[in-house]
Amino acid sequence: MKGFASDNYSGVHPQIMKALADVNVDHATAYGGDAYTEKAVQQFKHLLGEQVEVYFTFIGTAANVLGLKALTQPYHAVICAETAHIHVDECGAPERFTGCKLLTVSTQDGKLRIADIEKFQSLVDFEHHVQPKVISISQTTELGTLYTPDEIKALADYAHSHNMYLQMDGARIANAAVALNMPIKNFTFDCGVDVLSFGGTKNGMMYGEAIVFANASLCENFKYIRKQGMQLASKMRYISAQFSAYFSDDLYLKTASHANAMAQLLVEKLTPIPEIEITQKPAANAVFAKLPKAIIKPLQEEYFFYEWDEQNHEVRLMCSWDTTETEIENFVSLIKKLLKTTEA
Amino acid sequence: MKGFASDNYSGVHPQIMKALADVNVDHATAYGGDAYTEKAVQQFKHLLGEQVEVYFTFIGTAANVLGLKALTQPYHAVICAETAHIHVDECGAPERFTGCKLLTVSTQDGKLRIADIEKFQSLVDFEHHVQPKVISISQTTELGTLYTPDEIKALADYAHSHNMYLQMDGARIANAAVALNMPIKNFTFDCGVDVLSFGGTKNGMMYGEAIVFANASLCENFKYIRKQGMQLASKMRYISAQFSAYFSDDLYLKTASHANAMAQLLVEKLTPIPEIEITQKPAANAVFAKLPKAIIKPLQEEYFFYEWDEQNHEVRLMCSWDTTETEIENFVSLIKKLLKTTEA
Amino acid sequence: MKGFASDNYSGVHPQIMKALADVNVDHATAYGGDAYTEKAVQQFKHLLGEQVEVYFTFIGTAANVLGLKALTQPYHAVICAETAHIHVDECGAPERFTGCKLLTVSTQDGKLRIADIEKFQSLVDFEHHVQPKVISISQTTELGTLYTPDEIKALADYAHSHNMYLQMDGARIANAAVALNMPIKNFTFDCGVDVLSFGGTKNGMMYGEAIVFANASLCENFKYIRKQGMQLASKMRYISAQFSAYFSDDLYLKTASHANAMAQLLVEKLTPIPEIEITQKPAANAVFAKLPKAIIKPLQEEYFFYEWDEQNHEVRLMCSWDTTETEIENFVSLIKKLLKTTEA
Amino acid sequence: MKGFASDNYSGVHPQIMKALADVNVDHATAYGGDAYTEKAVQQFKHLLGEQVEVYFTFIGTAANVLGLKALTQPYHAVICAETAHIHVDECGAPERFTGCKLLTVSTQDGKLRIADIEKFQSLVDFEHHVQPKVISISQTTELGTLYTPDEIKALADYAHSHNMYLQMDGARIANAAVALNMPIKNFTFDCGVDVLSFGGTKNGMMYGEAIVFANASLCENFKYIRKQGMQLASKMRYISAQFSAYFSDDLYLKTASHANAMAQLLVEKLTPIPEIEITQKPAANAVFAKLPKAIIKPLQEEYFFYEWDEQNHEVRLMCSWDTTETEIENFVSLIKKLLKTTEA
Repeated sequence: MKGFASDNYSGVHPQIMKALADVNVDHATAYGGDAYTEKAVQQFKHLLGEQVEVYFTFIGTAANVLGLKALTQPYHAVICAETAHIHVDECGAPERFTGCKLLTVSTQDGKLRIADIEKFQSLVDFEHHVQPKVISISQTTELGTLYTPDEIKALADYAHSHNMYLQMDGARIANAAVALNMPIKNFTFDCGVDVLSFGGTKNGMMYGEAIVFANASLCENFKYIRKQGMQLASKMRYISAQFSAYFSDDLYLKTASHANAMAQLLVEKLTPIPEIEITQKPAANAVFAKLPKAIIKPLQEEYFFYEWDEQNHEVRLMCSWDTTETEIENFVSLIKKLLKTTEA
Repeated sequence: MKGFASDNYSGVHPQIMKALADVNVDHATAYGGDAYTEKAVQQFKHLLGEQVEVYFTFIGTAANVLGLKALTQPYHAVICAETAHIHVDECGAPERFTGCKLLTVSTQDGKLRIADIEKFQSLVDFEHHVQPKVISISQTTELGTLYTPDEIKALADYAHSHNMYLQMDGARIANAAVALNMPIKNFTFDCGVDVLSFGGTKNGMMYGEAIVFANASLCENFKYIRKQGMQLASKMRYISAQFSAYFSDDLYLKTASHANAMAQLLVEKLTPIPEIEITQKPAANAVFAKLPKAIIKPLQEEYFFYEWDEQNHEVRLMCSWDTTETEIENFVSLIKKLLKTTEA
Repeated sequence: MKGFASDNYSGVHPQIMKALADVNVDHATAYGGDAYTEKAVQQFKHLLGEQVEVYFTFIGTAANVLGLKALTQPYHAVICAETAHIHVDECGAPERFTGCKLLTVSTQDGKLRIADIEKFQSLVDFEHHVQPKVISISQTTELGTLYTPDEIKALADYAHSHNMYLQMDGARIANAAVALNMPIKNFTFDCGVDVLSFGGTKNGMMYGEAIVFANASLCENFKYIRKQGMQLASKMRYISAQFSAYFSDDLYLKTASHANAMAQLLVEKLTPIPEIEITQKPAANAVFAKLPKAIIKPLQEEYFFYEWDEQNHEVRLMCSWDTTETEIENFVSLIKKLLKTTEA
Repeated sequence: MKGFASDNYSGVHPQIMKALADVNVDHATAYGGDAYTEKAVQQFKHLLGEQVEVYFTFIGTAANVLGLKALTQPYHAVICAETAHIHVDECGAPERFTGCKLLTVSTQDGKLRIADIEKFQSLVDFEHHVQPKVISISQTTELGTLYTPDEIKALADYAHSHNMYLQMDGARIANAAVALNMPIKNFTFDCGVDVLSFGGTKNGMMYGEAIVFANASLCENFKYIRKQGMQLASKMRYISAQFSAYFSDDLYLKTASHANAMAQLLVEKLTPIPEIEITQKPAANAVFAKLPKAIIKPLQEEYFFYEWDEQNHEVRLMCSWDTTETEIENFVSLIKKLLKTTEA
């Protein structure tokens, strides 16, 4: 049974599996002091700039939380969209581990705009208020939308001119790169991003994410934060090997490209159906659409996917590196069939 | 290059690798809602009792810390040996995530005894003092020693009769089972252990540990603690599959048995050397020994291992599931050669 | 120089000062084990019900935060108005000490309504989301408005039927009692409030607030939370004596009654001025009004008060137990004079 | 009923009470923006050096904890004596609010020595271990003993040459000044102390302590730490006024001098009694003595005091600014009477 629930329902890419087997020889220094890790870090530097600093974690929540911790004190605040993963889907881990308050902004499309966050400057310098320190954005966003490099640069400039940092949740950074058709560096560190959660798991890896800091001054002593944050892998080589394979022959772009293309295909096939409304301009591998209420449950009996907004019967359909055209065709066929048989 | 640095320098057992490949088909519900996870949990229940509750984490530090969190409030204290991993090697994660103070006891062999911990009862009921709530022991201990079932039962009874819990760090629980020659259940939950960190990584797995609670009443709402503690794996099936293979055909006992046997062999070969003193009765896969200072550095140029106590030039030699007799022979030969050529 | 900045700019009532002098004899057991504290606690029970439990703290922020801590685990969430003191004015202390996220609701008048908070039930039981556990309201609110007993009871019933608690920030509870013309018990514990921050400092005391729990089951082990929260006074008798005097001859109602009356007088004198708009129905001792922008700065040169909403030049004018009619008359006269001399 | 339980069982000095009455006029800016606070801060600077920075808190526990927080990150550790107030008597507040581990040293007299703490350098730079960052000492110690300026300077030099800070718990700093017969500055900031908890409550104040930083670079953004730590007093002038009176005419030295003299008198009267053994060289206002077990309970029926070490029937007798010669004479008379009537 497959479906469109999430890109982390998908499996592991064969080239990643091969890489795991390949490094499974001999002993290697634990906790990242091994040659495989050194190689993977160099690949990151090659991709994102020699000055970046890279730390691996197990999961994306940890990449976000520990990255934010590196930039904040507990009396700081993190500004984010009301739909941000750090606000909605991390069970309060950001508040718990950083001590910071999350200041949220209501948005239509999951994207922060400077006009929405200027009001928080009124908090600055008053000891009764938390002090805004980080602007956090997701690329792609939780609503499947995308920031342009200019938008990112504007937010980074605003952050830096107001004594703040810009953090990017890049759980789907590869899908963004494909959608923007440009190297990741161009719309992250070149635009002024200070710390990036670089996702791997959702795009074909088994486990493993990376926290990438723009430079070493942002992560002094970070190794203790990671260890205390319970994210230091003992057999680190098995994360490192995955990332090495992920970057080899642009595997990460190929898998993301496929996922995005499948989403595009899905949109193309759904758009002509009059009972269905595409609710967000689909930029990468997520499709948001309003479906007739009556067909959602029967559809879920055959395919995994989530109802994003029950009140408006809006669903989220995620495509993955292993989604096939046939699946999409079958899925859309079932929709059409259900539309006929139900009084929608 | 191999050596005796730590059992997490070792690789992944081929049967574990095969299991990972076997489950790498189709989509599976993320975050543990999949059939592979259900199967692994059942295997744990079969091994440890139907009433136990099992939660997977990425690493042993997290298993310890989250297990302790489930049993404590921030004003509580955890009693442990001064050498305990939770005290020495987790970078303060227990204090950070639980809020609790660790109350330590100086020991000769890494083992807690009731006589050593009775003094903490004087803290009880005074609001100025932290309140002892958990006794934490390691099996095997960080000094390679072992608790007998009777000793564990005595500590559990003491804990329970004083409104406390008994937590066990079982990073090397399989090695303990082999050393005691009895099922794990017999010296854990049958003795009154409340929560067990069940290790896999050090004994042939790639990553993944389990927190096993004696019963459901000890872990109500624990799923939120794990998520907030950043230990909920998205592609959970790949941890579950490892544990399933780990338990199949008693693989975990075979790997541990080999590691213990290699340690025994090492002891046998070191004991006759007059310049070397075995400092802890070796119970499982760790050997502690005082070596002549002059040979330690040259020996480390060829083999990984840690100096445990620099002042006394005491070293720790860990054997692993993939340690070979030849390695031990070559290692001991080098020692003998170095003893001849240096003025020890 | 006096003014309308805040009721904590005011001094200490002479009867409170006398009480401090009266208990300043001999030694008394520290940390609350003294007869003065026992007496004050009994007065609280007499006022609010025999079954309540009372703990003193130094400040209102601590009363709120520690009260919330008693009812929550770190993976819980607290629902409050966007204007709530716990969200805006406590520098993130609630998140820091409880670990909980604050889920905020935008309101017109600072009051929570069930319709506004029902949406948070969609979070329940999903481990990715924080779990709503407390509804927090302020009585009187930060916008000077008031809940009726029926409104409070409705919120309490909703909370209890959804496995939640109702917490009340009563920094100005005495002003609410006067405004509602009923005993505090009637609109707190009789309505189902679980924990109340009972303010003293803003209404004539020097320092000291109380956390009042509806019953003992809500505050088991709370003494450790208070101590660890750094709110256990060593010379407790000096807080207790203040509360004893505060309750004697209904001093707390007299001081609050005066403050409310002065706010009423201020409203009466401001209402006829066409350039001024009263923006919140003034229920107790706070007056919110839009003033012509041009007169605000010159007015602040003579009187303390805060601009609440700079964009709309809305100001907050707090009356206190020691505000005099003459002050109000002089203040209004100055407003009138400034309105004439400036081009408003 | 008086006694020797603790110097915080004592009342408030009349000159402090008078100061509270004197400032109880008009309104004053809340949260420390008032002239009284400015004056008190200047008095601190006059006493301790113009470059120091001063923040008031309510209690000594908070002074210690927030001072430590200013100097540490959660992965740091604080080195202290096993008997330190921060370790024993603050219910884990240091761990809870700073995240840091406390590394304790067993001592005979409550004093840290460099030889005892050098071992912690082995932790430095390893991510598995907490990183020692602060040495914390008490002056006078919890055992009534005293550091010489040379000892303090040696610890400060050691700290600074090892990338650490020196924190001093000065709950009884005035008693130390009298015992050393030198200005407080001479044995604190002149010796290299980085942050000092400056006590007032135990020596005649009603409430209020100060955190004094050696210079502004150590407490950047500290105002947020204090507010988030729930220690920002709204009606601050009433703490400030107490400190102003405390420093006027050297009141603090007079009260401490009296307390020390009473302890000296007590020692003189106890020493000749053969059944009694003075167990710590009494340096200030605390006397530690072993008493025959049989007389302790009857003695406690008439006088407050604590049994420090029940096993050895060692008691702690604290003298205060309001202890009288007559009380000491009566106390010693009762001891003598009890020794005759009991079979000790």
